[in-house]
Amino acid sequence: MDPFRLEADRVLLLDQTRLPDQETWIEVRNAVEMSDAIARMRVRGAPAIGIAAALALGLEEALARGSAAERIGVLESAGRQLVAARPTAVNLSRAVSRVLESARSASADCRAARAEALALWDEDRAASRAIAEHGANLFPTEVRFLTHCHTGGLATGGGGTALAIILELSRRRGGTLEVWVTETRPLLQGARLTAWELRREGVPVRLIVDSAAAHTILNRRIEGVLVGADRIARNGDVANKIGTLPLALAAREAGIPFIVAAPWSTVDPSTPSGASIPIEERDESEVTGVKEVAVAPPGIRVENPAFDVTPARLVSAITTERGVRRGPHYDFSRDFSRG
Amino acid sequence: MDPFRLEADRVLLLDQTRLPDQETWIEVRNAVEMSDAIARMRVRGAPAIGIAAALALGLEEALARGSAAERIGVLESAGRQLVAARPTAVNLSRAVSRVLESARSASADCRAARAEALALWDEDRAASRAIAEHGANLFPTEVRFLTHCHTGGLATGGGGTALAIILELSRRRGGTLEVWVTETRPLLQGARLTAWELRREGVPVRLIVDSAAAHTILNRRIEGVLVGADRIARNGDVANKIGTLPLALAAREAGIPFIVAAPWSTVDPSTPSGASIPIEERDESEVTGVKEVAVAPPGIRVENPAFDVTPARLVSAITTERGVRRGPHYDFSRDFSRG
Repeated sequence: MDPFRLEADRVLLLDQTRLPDQETWIEVRNAVEMSDAIARMRVRGAPAIGIAAALALGLEEALARGSAAERIGVLESAGRQLVAARPTAVNLSRAVSRVLESARSASADCRAARAEALALWDEDRAASRAIAEHGANLFPTEVRFLTHCHTGGLATGGGGTALAIILELSRRRGGTLEVWVTETRPLLQGARLTAWELRREGVPVRLIVDSAAAHTILNRRIEGVLVGADRIARNGDVANKIGTLPLALAAREAGIPFIVAAPWSTVDPSTPSGASIPIEERDESEVTGVKEVAVAPPGIRVENPAFDVTPARLVSAITTERGVRRGPHYDFSRDFSRG
Repeated sequence: MDPFRLEADRVLLLDQTRLPDQETWIEVRNAVEMSDAIARMRVRGAPAIGIAAALALGLEEALARGSAAERIGVLESAGRQLVAARPTAVNLSRAVSRVLESARSASADCRAARAEALALWDEDRAASRAIAEHGANLFPTEVRFLTHCHTGGLATGGGGTALAIILELSRRRGGTLEVWVTETRPLLQGARLTAWELRREGVPVRLIVDSAAAHTILNRRIEGVLVGADRIARNGDVANKIGTLPLALAAREAGIPFIVAAPWSTVDPSTPSGASIPIEERDESEVTGVKEVAVAPPGIRVENPAFDVTPARLVSAITTERGVRRGPHYDFSRDFSRG
């Protein structure tokens, strides 16, 4: 399932904060509205927010008036606002940079931003297919996985990353899978999206609270932990949804593989290590309430980091559309030094 | 604060499922009602449920009629029912055994069960004081802790275990503490009880989701992880609230102490290792809902283990009223072999 639809003068976004209870499509007509939707996580998932931001620049391009320089200035300003919406996933800033670059080098009337956004979207779908195939090759067709957060089609341009590997094994290779899914507090993407999507696909799924993951990995014969990524540093450190690091620690304790799946655009050669990745701190209300119900005493101070960093030495392999980089301690410098 | 009050023919229980929103005292008149309150976690915490069960046997003793043998039979039947309410915490079965032993060896009219229950309660309060002192000696008075679930007075006969160490440092030794508290899904004892109790005590507290603990331990200069225990096996393995094991894995990764605090009655010489500890599986509804609000799609299968086991090699020290047993790998066989 795709998380957005492009129309002539607007983008329709499936509001992921309301799934699976309600399927609500919201209308986005410019970068301000898209920045707001990204910050509120109506669209989420590192690849998906990159494409969403690119599509928003396409909308701004159509709205922009004035000289070529003025129009580029409008796009640059919109790009800064989009990038500021969420700081951790590198896909967002890279998508914006790429679209701006296209717009700058094109003539004013060819809708270069829109074309580049569509190219990004197409590439992401192709990347998802390749990730699914490479990742599925790592496992037998009878396997017990644990996964975290949501890495299906809605988190990308339609294909998915870690969840795409699971669906490749299950749907296309006739595998017999069992999948344990963490609920993923605070926003419950695992319970709301992953468990729902897997059940719809007919994959046997069990939902657990996040803190039961280590017990489950060690006691339910889990054979692999599969997660996505929001940014992969040059040294192989991986930033992903808060709660990923403890899964890697538990996988090491259990001696099972910890596999990261992400498009190549998530690898950021300009980030030397996890220590350089900005960790977004989100609003306290996500922790103190669940769907409008208070779950903490009023006035309690909260820390709500949205991501954590798993060091490269805990990552067994990173699967991208370019194939599987085997760790632990896989260092991407070798990929970038050979150009 | 005490979690119960004993009156002539009833026990009043503070309903901990409703705290801190409502302070509701419920009336318990017999073992059936107490078993129900324990199973529903209206009273919870390993030491507290042991005392609660003992007090319930005191109520049954007053109600029992017939010959001495018949009366003991009634108490034994009540004891079985109480023990079945929650299987993991050994304090419950040991308290019941101890009270039944007293009742069997006493004359029928002396209310031996009630007296033994009160003795247990007194001993638990004394144990809490000693645990607090021994545990506080392990740390400087300026320290940053992370704790899980609730281990304050309400979890015991009034004193607390891990939280008692924090309060000893803060209240009695004038320490400057900062405490990070995990919310503790599914029932949110950390958010509802621990964060509330620490704030009431004036201790700076930050609430986090459970899955943020590893990130917090590694990035907020946490100096010690303090938790309670529901059963400690002879080899030093520790069963405690689900989510304890990942904290121990994160503490090892960070190189900081992981400290368990519990009364000596939590150490079970008849349990050789963690593999022998029954792990209670609780109802799915605790995971699929938060305070009556659905947080998972209907019909999703759930696993809800209430405890996990932390191996002795990850436990830096176990603090009981008998002092500090230093690990990792502390083996209690030496305590029991010397009698």
